[in-house]
Amino acid sequence: MDLLKEVATSVQEETKVRLHRRNVERVLSALLTVNDFWKVIDLSDLPVPAVAGIVKKFIKEGIIFTDDRENILLTQKGYDLVSDLGISPVVDLSCQSCEGRGYPFHIDKEFYRTFVELAKERPTPIRDYDQGAVTPETTVSRVLFIESRGDLAGKDIIVMGAEDDLTGLAVALRRKAKSVLVIDIDERLIEYDNRIFKDLGIENARAMVWDLRKPYGEDMLGKFDVFITDPPETFAAFRAFIGRGIATLKEEGCSGYFGLTLRDSSIFRWKEFQEILINEYGTVITDIVQDFNHYMNWEYHDETRAAEIAPVKRGPRDIWYRSAWYRIETLPGFKRWNEPISDEVFYLDEEGSTT
Amino acid sequence: MDLLKEVATSVQEETKVRLHRRNVERVLSALLTVNDFWKVIDLSDLPVPAVAGIVKKFIKEGIIFTDDRENILLTQKGYDLVSDLGISPVVDLSCQSCEGRGYPFHIDKEFYRTFVELAKERPTPIRDYDQGAVTPETTVSRVLFIESRGDLAGKDIIVMGAEDDLTGLAVALRRKAKSVLVIDIDERLIEYDNRIFKDLGIENARAMVWDLRKPYGEDMLGKFDVFITDPPETFAAFRAFIGRGIATLKEEGCSGYFGLTLRDSSIFRWKEFQEILINEYGTVITDIVQDFNHYMNWEYHDETRAAEIAPVKRGPRDIWYRSAWYRIETLPGFKRWNEPISDEVFYLDEEGSTT
Repeated sequence: MDLLKEVATSVQEETKVRLHRRNVERVLSALLTVNDFWKVIDLSDLPVPAVAGIVKKFIKEGIIFTDDRENILLTQKGYDLVSDLGISPVVDLSCQSCEGRGYPFHIDKEFYRTFVELAKERPTPIRDYDQGAVTPETTVSRVLFIESRGDLAGKDIIVMGAEDDLTGLAVALRRKAKSVLVIDIDERLIEYDNRIFKDLGIENARAMVWDLRKPYGEDMLGKFDVFITDPPETFAAFRAFIGRGIATLKEEGCSGYFGLTLRDSSIFRWKEFQEILINEYGTVITDIVQDFNHYMNWEYHDETRAAEIAPVKRGPRDIWYRSAWYRIETLPGFKRWNEPISDEVFYLDEEGSTT
Repeated sequence: MDLLKEVATSVQEETKVRLHRRNVERVLSALLTVNDFWKVIDLSDLPVPAVAGIVKKFIKEGIIFTDDRENILLTQKGYDLVSDLGISPVVDLSCQSCEGRGYPFHIDKEFYRTFVELAKERPTPIRDYDQGAVTPETTVSRVLFIESRGDLAGKDIIVMGAEDDLTGLAVALRRKAKSVLVIDIDERLIEYDNRIFKDLGIENARAMVWDLRKPYGEDMLGKFDVFITDPPETFAAFRAFIGRGIATLKEEGCSGYFGLTLRDSSIFRWKEFQEILINEYGTVITDIVQDFNHYMNWEYHDETRAAEIAPVKRGPRDIWYRSAWYRIETLPGFKRWNEPISDEVFYLDEEGSTT
């Protein structure tokens, strides 16, 4: 039997993360390119538990080994296997200027510099809320992307439950929106934003504590042109962040932006998310830019399930967690989903591990 | 009644292209930015007949006027309207280095230069087959994008019915694929490719005349890792190019690349395309990069429906026709669509106009 297929099947059984043989092939491609486990995940575009399972299985099969649980290296048997299968290393030909996003963070240097200065004292990400902030370059590029799509100037914008990235702050700082409302469960971030809005005299922006598990009241439904968010990749969170995001939109032709990663959800689940977006919510996907969002490492990494199941001791030393940037648009008949969420797997399920 | 909504409704009735009020708002935004009709279409992201209808309606309403059918300009009433509605010009903050694609065509200068030299004598696009080639920078960036996704090295690749772009030639020229098969209805292109393959000693690539309206034989089904295509935006062509492209793929985890534009199909139709991809074909969308494909102007422009319905005499002088670059992946249970196409609207229907 095909070894890759066998690995896919046994790791799927063990981890409950759905896998096919080309997912395993991709891990071999990554192992041929880097030897840091966290970078292997980055290049594999697979959930952490899946890569951990595949790596452990390959160790057992004598395909790879670790040097004192630091680096992961191919054995001679491993090199023979990738050579037999005709597998090549991962090649990265993305743009150095815009970091592959298509919108360079430095196109308006003053905006970038000001944001970096304002973000300097940001609250540390905490585990309770699955926080893990994107780089300032990512946040700034999000704003430039949104602006270029015609979704910033003169618009009423809501930034929902992802203010560890300070995206709401950056949107407000651009001073082109008609109004900006930032909501987040973390009081520290809300205070941080409101203080800056006050200090800088940004009068059309405000921040407010809100738990997205609760439905919105009538005062929030159908009031915005654009929503921006960055949910954990569970179904419950997807609905609470994106379903409710769509519920805030005024009419057809409004838009929503969010990140979705393949590090905490499989490509199988992505299909299910897309089914919800298109069939249930009645939206259309206009953009998916892979690896747009680069996340800085979080201090609580050692406490995460990811660290626990990793086949190596060493933690991440460089950016390894990325997500794609989605844009959707509402069409006539779109649905304003706004149910309460009682689900216990809000932050974490079988495919997730970084909370 | 809201003027924009009224325009959307009446133009939809007249042109049969589905529209909502924000589509009309976007045209006003474009009119505030440029005064070349073709550039207005580019910035509006709407089918040509829709923009033509909206512009004519605005002329009738005294919102805009043309100077001897050359340029389109806002009247004072028009300026008052956009000011009342708080509409802003379109802003473009995309990357100058990679032309917003995330993959710079010049990252491997020799590859780029060689391709440009080889493309120099390419056959002129002809109307019979809805041809209109992308820029050499686009073709080269497609290859770099595909290579970075792990879909080039060691793969069996089919490039289907879009060889006016010479994408098959560029893929073969990169000399990393395991095999390259180029099919196209236009014998001139097939001969062009085969001659170059022979001259350069590229032995793993061949080109073959094929009409995609015909189903594939068993020898083509399930034989490739990756398909690349660029269909006209009718439903019939979507199935013939993309459904059949998926039919050539070996297994789950294989991928397909294609362009889809909003110049010849509405965002409403995009949703229907996405429904087919996800619900019927069982694939997942992994990438949508807007404005990735830049098309050079075609000599037969004056004969097209687009030229006929345009409210201006002047033809396009610069790039105005762009399309998004899609990547999809197959998942377990995906469908190999391979029916004959007898549809008469293969190249053109109510939303299309550039054939």
